[in-house]
Amino acid sequence: MGDKPIWEQIGSSFVQHYYQLFDADRTQLGAIYIDASCLTWKDSSSRAKQLSLKNSLAFLSKKIQHSITAQDHQPTPDSCILSMVVGQLKADEDPIMGFHQIFLLKNINDAWVCTNDMFRLALHNFG
Amino acid sequence: MGDKPIWEQIGSSFVQHYYQLFDADRTQLGAIYIDASCLTWKDSSSRAKQLSLKNSLAFLSKKIQHSITAQDHQPTPDSCILSMVVGQLKADEDPIMGFHQIFLLKNINDAWVCTNDMFRLALHNFG
Repeated sequence: MGDKPIWEQIGSSFVQHYYQLFDADRTQLGAIYIDASCLTWKDSSSRAKQLSLKNSLAFLSKKIQHSITAQDHQPTPDSCILSMVVGQLKADEDPIMGFHQIFLLKNINDAWVCTNDMFRLALHNFG
Repeated sequence: MGDKPIWEQIGSSFVQHYYQLFDADRTQLGAIYIDASCLTWKDSSSRAKQLSLKNSLAFLSKKIQHSITAQDHQPTPDSCILSMVVGQLKADEDPIMGFHQIFLLKNINDAWVCTNDMFRLALHNFG
């Protein structure tokens, strides 16, 4: 880790934490957002974390396993960190699906929180 | 356009402009960035727009046609706009490839510029 830029260390730590929480106990995910966080999940967008976490994809009630294929991180001019993740997920007995997800991370009161979260299944690539 | 939120209007206008420029005359793309813009193109990252625009994928020298499958836009706490694009591209006679790209747009001196740009071919989904 030592020779990686700081934004990459923070971004990849966040990404690891996020998917571990998601796969193990996603009810704890609320803690990484703030009330003003903006989430887009596939095609539906909402501003309230409760709404988006409860209402999103039907497979949210299923057991999901994420596997990360690639991730990139960049610093932004407003001292945030932008992260892009490409991977695969397996929901119960469904076939494996590709996904991509981006996070904008902001340091608020000495903690990194996610202010923006966009997720899409990769099936949309060839529609 | 009238009933869409302003960030969605700006984001989708930018996206349309970007891919039109890219497919028609990508030498003009420099104008949408600032010197501090951060670009990640597949696996290589660079901070200077000249570097990234000249050095990136080998197919940058080819004729490329983008086709957008889906796009999402969100406002950020720092009054920026975060855009995620999923699509397909065709480079010369190569087979069609899926891609995803994200842009962070910031209003500087009354103009929307791209401060962060991350691109990946979707082949990475199933590595």
